[in-house]
Amino acid sequence: MSEPTFAIDRRQAGIARELFEAVRDMPLLSPHGHVDPRLLADDDPFPDPARLLIVPDHYVTRMLLSQGIPPSRLGVPRRDGGEVESDPRAIWRLLAENWHLFRGTPSRLWLEQTFRTVFGVETPLRRETADEVYDAIAARLAEPGFRPRALFERFGIEVLATTESPTDDLAQHAKLAADGWGGPDGRVISTFRPDNVVDMDREDWRDEIGKLGAISGSDVETYAGYIEALRKRREAFIAAGTTCTDHGHPTARTLKLTPAEAAAVYQRGLQGNATREDAETFRAHMLVEFARMSLDDGLVLQIHPGANRDHNRKLYASHGKDVGGDIPQATDYVHALRPLLDEFGMESRLHIVVYTLDEYTFSRELAPLAGGYPAMFLGAPWWFLDTPDAMRRFREAVTDAAGFYNTAGFVDDTRAFCSIPVRHSVARRSDAAYLASLVAQDRLPMDEAAETMADLAYHLPKRIFKLDGNTK
Amino acid sequence: MSEPTFAIDRRQAGIARELFEAVRDMPLLSPHGHVDPRLLADDDPFPDPARLLIVPDHYVTRMLLSQGIPPSRLGVPRRDGGEVESDPRAIWRLLAENWHLFRGTPSRLWLEQTFRTVFGVETPLRRETADEVYDAIAARLAEPGFRPRALFERFGIEVLATTESPTDDLAQHAKLAADGWGGPDGRVISTFRPDNVVDMDREDWRDEIGKLGAISGSDVETYAGYIEALRKRREAFIAAGTTCTDHGHPTARTLKLTPAEAAAVYQRGLQGNATREDAETFRAHMLVEFARMSLDDGLVLQIHPGANRDHNRKLYASHGKDVGGDIPQATDYVHALRPLLDEFGMESRLHIVVYTLDEYTFSRELAPLAGGYPAMFLGAPWWFLDTPDAMRRFREAVTDAAGFYNTAGFVDDTRAFCSIPVRHSVARRSDAAYLASLVAQDRLPMDEAAETMADLAYHLPKRIFKLDGNTK
Amino acid sequence: MSEPTFAIDRRQAGIARELFEAVRDMPLLSPHGHVDPRLLADDDPFPDPARLLIVPDHYVTRMLLSQGIPPSRLGVPRRDGGEVESDPRAIWRLLAENWHLFRGTPSRLWLEQTFRTVFGVETPLRRETADEVYDAIAARLAEPGFRPRALFERFGIEVLATTESPTDDLAQHAKLAADGWGGPDGRVISTFRPDNVVDMDREDWRDEIGKLGAISGSDVETYAGYIEALRKRREAFIAAGTTCTDHGHPTARTLKLTPAEAAAVYQRGLQGNATREDAETFRAHMLVEFARMSLDDGLVLQIHPGANRDHNRKLYASHGKDVGGDIPQATDYVHALRPLLDEFGMESRLHIVVYTLDEYTFSRELAPLAGGYPAMFLGAPWWFLDTPDAMRRFREAVTDAAGFYNTAGFVDDTRAFCSIPVRHSVARRSDAAYLASLVAQDRLPMDEAAETMADLAYHLPKRIFKLDGNTK
Repeated sequence: MSEPTFAIDRRQAGIARELFEAVRDMPLLSPHGHVDPRLLADDDPFPDPARLLIVPDHYVTRMLLSQGIPPSRLGVPRRDGGEVESDPRAIWRLLAENWHLFRGTPSRLWLEQTFRTVFGVETPLRRETADEVYDAIAARLAEPGFRPRALFERFGIEVLATTESPTDDLAQHAKLAADGWGGPDGRVISTFRPDNVVDMDREDWRDEIGKLGAISGSDVETYAGYIEALRKRREAFIAAGTTCTDHGHPTARTLKLTPAEAAAVYQRGLQGNATREDAETFRAHMLVEFARMSLDDGLVLQIHPGANRDHNRKLYASHGKDVGGDIPQATDYVHALRPLLDEFGMESRLHIVVYTLDEYTFSRELAPLAGGYPAMFLGAPWWFLDTPDAMRRFREAVTDAAGFYNTAGFVDDTRAFCSIPVRHSVARRSDAAYLASLVAQDRLPMDEAAETMADLAYHLPKRIFKLDGNTK
Repeated sequence: MSEPTFAIDRRQAGIARELFEAVRDMPLLSPHGHVDPRLLADDDPFPDPARLLIVPDHYVTRMLLSQGIPPSRLGVPRRDGGEVESDPRAIWRLLAENWHLFRGTPSRLWLEQTFRTVFGVETPLRRETADEVYDAIAARLAEPGFRPRALFERFGIEVLATTESPTDDLAQHAKLAADGWGGPDGRVISTFRPDNVVDMDREDWRDEIGKLGAISGSDVETYAGYIEALRKRREAFIAAGTTCTDHGHPTARTLKLTPAEAAAVYQRGLQGNATREDAETFRAHMLVEFARMSLDDGLVLQIHPGANRDHNRKLYASHGKDVGGDIPQATDYVHALRPLLDEFGMESRLHIVVYTLDEYTFSRELAPLAGGYPAMFLGAPWWFLDTPDAMRRFREAVTDAAGFYNTAGFVDDTRAFCSIPVRHSVARRSDAAYLASLVAQDRLPMDEAAETMADLAYHLPKRIFKLDGNTK
Repeated sequence: MSEPTFAIDRRQAGIARELFEAVRDMPLLSPHGHVDPRLLADDDPFPDPARLLIVPDHYVTRMLLSQGIPPSRLGVPRRDGGEVESDPRAIWRLLAENWHLFRGTPSRLWLEQTFRTVFGVETPLRRETADEVYDAIAARLAEPGFRPRALFERFGIEVLATTESPTDDLAQHAKLAADGWGGPDGRVISTFRPDNVVDMDREDWRDEIGKLGAISGSDVETYAGYIEALRKRREAFIAAGTTCTDHGHPTARTLKLTPAEAAAVYQRGLQGNATREDAETFRAHMLVEFARMSLDDGLVLQIHPGANRDHNRKLYASHGKDVGGDIPQATDYVHALRPLLDEFGMESRLHIVVYTLDEYTFSRELAPLAGGYPAMFLGAPWWFLDTPDAMRRFREAVTDAAGFYNTAGFVDDTRAFCSIPVRHSVARRSDAAYLASLVAQDRLPMDEAAETMADLAYHLPKRIFKLDGNTK
């Protein structure tokens, strides 16, 4: 297939193509994602096509699971170390035999264009061509030009942010900095994601608190020491180039406790007596605290709420987290974010980027909030929604009340390094199609559409995620 | 009007027409509906046009009611046996005079095409043409070729499933089987719908339990006997060709009680002491139990949640159930279905088809669930949503996470026998329009679109509703 | 920019234009809005362009605030009387410099077309053209033909309803009547909006009750006297031409209390002991009472629920109400409206027009309710939703179950007098685009589309808002 414009009307498609061509070669900013920094620190060759493109991609394995193909047959590691398929070619063939399941899905779009534009494979994947496509990609992976750093440069990535917890020692980022790839204003930076030391619902929370104490040298037996430890770790992240934090919570609830109240909940957590409501209260309170820290140190605050984690319990039991068992849930923002916005919503220096898995808040909650508070920006459609159709619905629903300039621009949010260019390309083409629809309707002149296109593709995320060196 | 493609763009419309033409004459599968089996068992001529097409169609009578025309003037029987309009021509004229109310509605689409394609009446309905259209249809109804069985064959229906309760003796289906029309692999089969013996909120629940005991010969004074009775009735239905069950609940809540807990609630029900929460708990528990039975006997489990029944109390008081007084309500699936999916969601042998009246769950809940559990499939847009626009929104919202192959295919869900072909035609044309939009955007090649079209129109429902003889 | 048709497809756009041209010059009905009656009573010249078009428009000031431009810099008065920008040209330049923020928004559409069609200014607004546009508009504002009454006639407004509370003495409307502009069947009438004497959550409720007693001469120390006072004020409004009431509540909840229960809540309110639940209960109850009064006196009942008022507390603290700090919230109608519809939903004489800020109720709740009860009509997409895209989504989502004739037609709901023609033009063009989409799909013949267009633009609101002299 050629490169879709995501417009049906020929005139709109022509305008969309023109808008896209002008930004096609702009550098890629990836301010939020889950690429393993070791990949770029070590710069080892990628493994086989299946382990690169199928095994770790839970979009792909969940779709196959939904039709009865268990993750073990796709090589996804079991928690008990039990046997799973280890022949990459067998895994690849299984995908090819079931390729029809992906018709109309973003996975198909991403994989197909990755085959073509990253690996130069034009043969369409089918049961009969499985080996041909596999061999062609495998051959490329053996070439030096297909090592991670070479691809990074070929992809035109300007900045890639990985995601680490405060208990991470940032050793990979230190190695990258030593190689001229990391550090402040470097190409690879980290994101400060403290969920492991915030979420008392996690079984390992107290262990993680212990690690936080150790790595920060603070006395985390007290709430004050805990806050101090977090501030210190933020400093360390900032020294390594970090510009953003990220917070993945079940809800968007925020809350301002007094220090005494917060300390009491914290102590119950340490003593193992925290209730589920305590855990929710503490997560909610800490969002406000992190915003307070951001006002001091300039880090952008990202909130990713609304995932019902490990909904598929049997899948979790057999294969653990992040293998496709999460499901979105209805998410309230209007009431949930109010304590945070009461406190800091009017601060222009603060950037709060809010994401959603629940598109049925676009026009009712998210756009009016982002269009009403200086501190708040709308994150790109996320996860189940980072698709051409959902991105169109996002623009159609939020532009009325939020315009373009209260949206933060695309983030790929991916661990699939090789899919980064196509994901950005899809997002840019989706935005181009939306802008072209305005132009085709005589609602926006072409010159303004083109300027907006460049802003969405590059300038807005650069500014909003503070990748422009202006961290205050 | 000619036959709409449901595409505005000429190129998309051309592709849609090509896709549709290839499936236009494929047999119709109607695995879920409410046609009275007596219709086909007796094969008597249909009554007049008004009693055939207006009086029993609550889509039509509710729209007229909404503009102040009471059901009595449309011949809808009163519960108190009070007088209602009995002149079919007067009823027909009332529709014709108010035909403008139906502009843009599915009722207009269905009726107009039924007039044209079933009865060969090309004259558009208007106040002035009311009698002409009436007389033309009435003349046809008097012909032998317009008896139910003749139409069934002309419509190209391969299988039609009616809906009966466990207390039904299936006498009509026995007659059909004796005539070569029913029984396993027959053309007319039943669906096992046990709401009357599950829902303690119904005034007649205990009476229905009595009937269940009588027809099954089980001791329904105990919970164990009740379960046994249900299993026996399922066997009887299966012997008569049934492949599916259906469950119409106010919510999608599921719950796994222990046998002792379930027995206690059941006893409270028998004693008339069940609370509303008991009733909800029992319905929720029984969905899990029915799934357990399905795993044993192979019946497909259909869940139709979210109707707020008899919202219009005055209408219920005067005319009873199923006359247009039901309203959808917000429906949660993510939390509600979890106990069921925890228990049986990973069973590929089990087919659970979930419907909705709440489209604001499409991308957030239904598509991620169906795209994540082997047992779950998405039912076709239902009732208020079985329209060209809602079917488009369904595909646009669910394909990203569920693809096409986790959707179960169209069911007409109708009691209006003569509307069956046009309803399937509208669904096929709607799907063709969506597939054509992907082709027109270069997101799917034509050959794959055509294969998908045939799957959606015929092969998927045949397999998922187990109409292919493969009932395990 | 030329005048958009809101259609991308050229054929659809051509049909849309044809449909629109036929209603372009039909008179404007503005049965719900917030224009200050003094404007037309005094007929003084408008102030400068900034004070006319920017300062009072909270759509504009909130968008600028969202990007860090405080309302004080835009001349919005402070509650504390503190200094704000007073140079209109400076305010205007600030808008021009930030004009890109409005790309794709309805504000841009409205302002741009207001410049062009009301003031004849063709120069596009840009930083460089700020003064030129300002001067051109200012020059026009000095001309006699740009006084309010002259514009009213030029705009082709047939009726404009302002909004007043029962404690208003209607002096402005008396002046208008004396000048031949007001009174029954007059051009400027009022709407009866009793929120200030219904909502016990308001700080000034008891003071307002005092004013109600004074103006009505009733003993408002008792609930019966309070009801009598409201009935008397309705009579006074009706004598001044009023045909509608309006009710802006946080939720759509309705409730039927006994007189004794209502009296008890009322007394708690007078004594300052009402809880928040009391306030909600009383609001809910009063909606049913107002419907009862409407059945007697013929006033149309409008319900505007779902605004979370003054969400932005700092903005409220500095600048007060109605300056852009309100946010929509999720709104239930199915359960909330049931007590009202149980009581009066089957009354064809009663017109209840229900609005929403929550589009995620369109197909699930609002359309089925309006398509099922004679008394209920759907209000036009409101506030955050009165945009071309949201109006398209409204028609696409509600027409299936409600058709066109259960929708009440456009209301501009604006205080921005000069924006009235463009708002109606946008609504008419949006409806034309939707009707054209049906025509282009062969779902509606052109003659019926044209008739529907005229009904939506003029005849439906005239009848439903009882502007046709038929007030019973």
